[in-house]
Amino acid sequence: MTTSLRVAVAQLPNRVGDLDGNAERIGRAMDWAEQEAEADVLVLPELVLTGYGLGDLVLHREFLDDADDALRELTQRSGRTTTVLSTVERVAPQRSWDTRERSVAISAALISGGELRGSYHKMLLPMYDLFDEARNFAPGRRADQLWRIGDVAAGVSICEDLWSPEGPPEAQSVAGAQILLVPNSSPFHRGKAVGRLTNTQAVAVRNGLPVVYVNFVGGQDEVVFDGGSIVVDRDGELRHRGREFAVDHFAVDVPLAPERPLRGPITTVHTRPIARTGPVTPTAVPREPLQDPEATWSALTSGLRDYAERNDFHGIALGLSGGIDAGVTATLAVDAVGPDRVLALALPSPETPGEETTDAKQLAANLGIALEVVSVEVPSRAEEVPEGAQEHEAHGSRYEREHAYHRARAAVLLDMFEERQYLVLATGNKSEISVGEASLFGSLAGEFAPLKDCPKTLVYELARWRNARGGVIPEQTLARTSTMRRLSPDPLPSYEVLDDIVQRYVEYQQGFDDLVAAGYAEDVVQDALRRIDDAERIRRYTPIGVKVTSRAFNQDRRMPMTSGWRAHPRPEPIEDPWASAAEQAGEDVPAPGADGEADVG
Amino acid sequence: MTTSLRVAVAQLPNRVGDLDGNAERIGRAMDWAEQEAEADVLVLPELVLTGYGLGDLVLHREFLDDADDALRELTQRSGRTTTVLSTVERVAPQRSWDTRERSVAISAALISGGELRGSYHKMLLPMYDLFDEARNFAPGRRADQLWRIGDVAAGVSICEDLWSPEGPPEAQSVAGAQILLVPNSSPFHRGKAVGRLTNTQAVAVRNGLPVVYVNFVGGQDEVVFDGGSIVVDRDGELRHRGREFAVDHFAVDVPLAPERPLRGPITTVHTRPIARTGPVTPTAVPREPLQDPEATWSALTSGLRDYAERNDFHGIALGLSGGIDAGVTATLAVDAVGPDRVLALALPSPETPGEETTDAKQLAANLGIALEVVSVEVPSRAEEVPEGAQEHEAHGSRYEREHAYHRARAAVLLDMFEERQYLVLATGNKSEISVGEASLFGSLAGEFAPLKDCPKTLVYELARWRNARGGVIPEQTLARTSTMRRLSPDPLPSYEVLDDIVQRYVEYQQGFDDLVAAGYAEDVVQDALRRIDDAERIRRYTPIGVKVTSRAFNQDRRMPMTSGWRAHPRPEPIEDPWASAAEQAGEDVPAPGADGEADVG
Repeated sequence: MTTSLRVAVAQLPNRVGDLDGNAERIGRAMDWAEQEAEADVLVLPELVLTGYGLGDLVLHREFLDDADDALRELTQRSGRTTTVLSTVERVAPQRSWDTRERSVAISAALISGGELRGSYHKMLLPMYDLFDEARNFAPGRRADQLWRIGDVAAGVSICEDLWSPEGPPEAQSVAGAQILLVPNSSPFHRGKAVGRLTNTQAVAVRNGLPVVYVNFVGGQDEVVFDGGSIVVDRDGELRHRGREFAVDHFAVDVPLAPERPLRGPITTVHTRPIARTGPVTPTAVPREPLQDPEATWSALTSGLRDYAERNDFHGIALGLSGGIDAGVTATLAVDAVGPDRVLALALPSPETPGEETTDAKQLAANLGIALEVVSVEVPSRAEEVPEGAQEHEAHGSRYEREHAYHRARAAVLLDMFEERQYLVLATGNKSEISVGEASLFGSLAGEFAPLKDCPKTLVYELARWRNARGGVIPEQTLARTSTMRRLSPDPLPSYEVLDDIVQRYVEYQQGFDDLVAAGYAEDVVQDALRRIDDAERIRRYTPIGVKVTSRAFNQDRRMPMTSGWRAHPRPEPIEDPWASAAEQAGEDVPAPGADGEADVG
Repeated sequence: MTTSLRVAVAQLPNRVGDLDGNAERIGRAMDWAEQEAEADVLVLPELVLTGYGLGDLVLHREFLDDADDALRELTQRSGRTTTVLSTVERVAPQRSWDTRERSVAISAALISGGELRGSYHKMLLPMYDLFDEARNFAPGRRADQLWRIGDVAAGVSICEDLWSPEGPPEAQSVAGAQILLVPNSSPFHRGKAVGRLTNTQAVAVRNGLPVVYVNFVGGQDEVVFDGGSIVVDRDGELRHRGREFAVDHFAVDVPLAPERPLRGPITTVHTRPIARTGPVTPTAVPREPLQDPEATWSALTSGLRDYAERNDFHGIALGLSGGIDAGVTATLAVDAVGPDRVLALALPSPETPGEETTDAKQLAANLGIALEVVSVEVPSRAEEVPEGAQEHEAHGSRYEREHAYHRARAAVLLDMFEERQYLVLATGNKSEISVGEASLFGSLAGEFAPLKDCPKTLVYELARWRNARGGVIPEQTLARTSTMRRLSPDPLPSYEVLDDIVQRYVEYQQGFDDLVAAGYAEDVVQDALRRIDDAERIRRYTPIGVKVTSRAFNQDRRMPMTSGWRAHPRPEPIEDPWASAAEQAGEDVPAPGADGEADVG
């Protein structure tokens, strides 16, 4: 009786839609697993063949055809080692939660000896935060399916399936599984690695089964898959942890649960034992996941590098202001792609203090990147304002001019670098995006905003951590208050207070009463919530950036731009400058019989 | 035995989150239905109390509390007329398609005589195109619930429920319903009104029941609810159609299906007959829905007006180029909010032909709007390019300068109008957004792009239709080719060809082979699909605008920004300028045993 299964794991990058490239990497992993690791089974991440985050690509028949072809080729290449290969797969059309028929499943194909032996279809399709799986995929219908690999009964489930207390792993355990193999696409956020281990241990202990949890690695638009695949034995002990934020592969002889009576269907994948010439090469196992802020730094650099590389940019460009956001963003860019591929501009306005440009030059020298100084002006055009606009407040406060300088800077950066295929970064952070301090099409103009989901207090933490590993960001930059914040007509609370309020409101959905109960003054809470709610419209235009908290704006948190509800008490009714126009347009319920024409111009 | 039910319908505006305002309008409709229409039942649109398109607002406990309070107040106000009042309602937490417990349903509360008699919970939650209902809502569990109103057995279902051939209406019919009452939030797209009627007729005939279909009216961010509520009798005959794109209310005596044996649960809502003093006031019933392009024009003006009003803008601002897109956009703005609230700038560059500014002035005069001329320059800074950038192609072709002018124009518009709380419009159309002809943060900079979902051929159609009702857009504007298109280094096919390809690819998910089979040359199809796919990244930054086709970009069609798959055949592998960097960063599967550190800077 077999007491262990040799499981090979290849923690590969996530390249959406790159079927050829993905298949090539998978093929090499299959060769390694069979020829070098001599493994019974190779487990790969969820949707390893197609990439995760496909969106509506799966609505295109040609994409599904191409994925079918790629699976067929890999199947033909498969040998004695069984490969658990996750991809998209056509299934019989079914209606589930709405009237639309869906005919594509997230599948784990089991291939061996040149044949596709069967497929498990993911049953639980996450539909919250950034996940959209119920949009295009049909759920699997068979939780208790088992797979015979040699003489071992294995269960296969996929990602979300592992997180339900009554999930497929429970059904597979009852059906007689001796081990669970689980492909995943689990995006990074701070603290997630700890939760992943805890949940996997709970599943293992609850079902008395070892669990092999395999994760993707690399960035895809807003998310970074952080690897850190884990093997947990049936007592919940961590047996192996894959590298984090890096491609990795390893093989482990996993002790099995004792054979159990079979109570469900089982499909034989292969029966021939693998001839082994030696033991698994022992590797050092990090027992603890990477700590913050190092983990966050790794996520930010991975996400930025992969976005730049996979979209074929020739390099990265950004403006250096002498402020901490630009300083951290530039350092991330250099750590991501190297100094030779980063170009910076200092873009002082006539009102920019000289020491800020000095700091920008110092930073560029420390990082070894090219810096050019280009002055920006805001056009003066007070006399050109059209007549109708005159009645409103005069344009031209120092604060408004600063927004205008930001727009001029963005225009210069985009004019210079877009056509050259340089990725232009925006430097906004989550705190200023929360309260609408960022300039629409100004400090938020750019194609990627690495710090988009980093609150300002975290930006400081990252700067200090990175400086401790080789000082790059000038100390006076860390000490300086941002120009926008100095000039803001509405004073904000300290970043410590603001960031805590934002986290409680955005990540934990706490409300006004909760925040007051947490010890904040009512007027502070009211003002902060008002700003967060009011900024929704311009926040929608924030560039994408790396998710690092449990709830990033826009993708994880989807809010109407137009909304009459506010989280803070609002004793005064909103002034409605359109009231008379609304009446004219027939917005009221008129008396019956007062029929009219559709109000078409 | 009762042979007809007097049904009142109030087709109200959709204001997300405006609980006070919505409740006030609902209260007035309730008073009208009881006191003036003397109706048995008042049917209101789906989520009439909260507005449709709530996004993650429903994750906030305070929002649900406020909605509960508003429902309670309206319930207390209810009299003899039953009101079918749709809102969000807390239900027992349930898991459905994933591991998340959801505890809020889309409900239709039946209120009467000061009491909440019961609620129907929507069963089918659409999760495609722009719909996201499975994200936050729990599905209802009871399809065959009936409601006794007087001595009539009525079924209530909600929107998507009506579109399934095995949906709740079928269950309610079998259970003994004599009429179906259906609140809806059905957004406009071209041709939708015809499909709505056809489906409602099919439901009526299939089940032998009259159907009262009530729709919202008004704009919410990207969508416009077009009203056009319909009453169909059990033979499928249209009995009444509400106004389109306008608030409306009406009452109809609807002939009922004969009483049937009850085979399901029934809840008594009220038993007291309504004392009637007179017949229903007859109204003129438009038999046909509004035709295009008038319907589209109405959708565009409604959507723009409601976005501007409900976000408390003081007016609308835009740049006039002398081109057709700007001409149609300006005319829409004037038709939406009147000439006094529209301000325009002509923003000629040194390279803009004088006649274009002349046309802009003529258009402004025709529309009666203020126009000021502000010249824009693109900064010359050839000598300031950092060393590393020199190797790439020289900046400064006429085409690139035009992109730069667009950015300068956007900056001027935003600098001048954002702080004054004017809504700044972008003028891009769907054709140029499809193929990436629009300038990132240039012609796409603005907070709202009315023509975002209008292909160029439709823009021409709209212009001609509107000019026929009072010439506003100069004829020479209609004849002029856009500057960007004249300058483009890569010639595009005609708009007739391009727009058809875009429609087939984007709306109908046709592929390369389908398009070639439709008669287009292979190289034309390949080039068009390449451009559409490649533009995905910058398309993400298109401002919101009114949906008018069956599939708008971004909201209805969600694509990865980074994708290695292309819909067109691609014989040549993509050149990878990063290949060596990827190797260094450990992107390959190394030989086993070659362990390493996580690549952290």
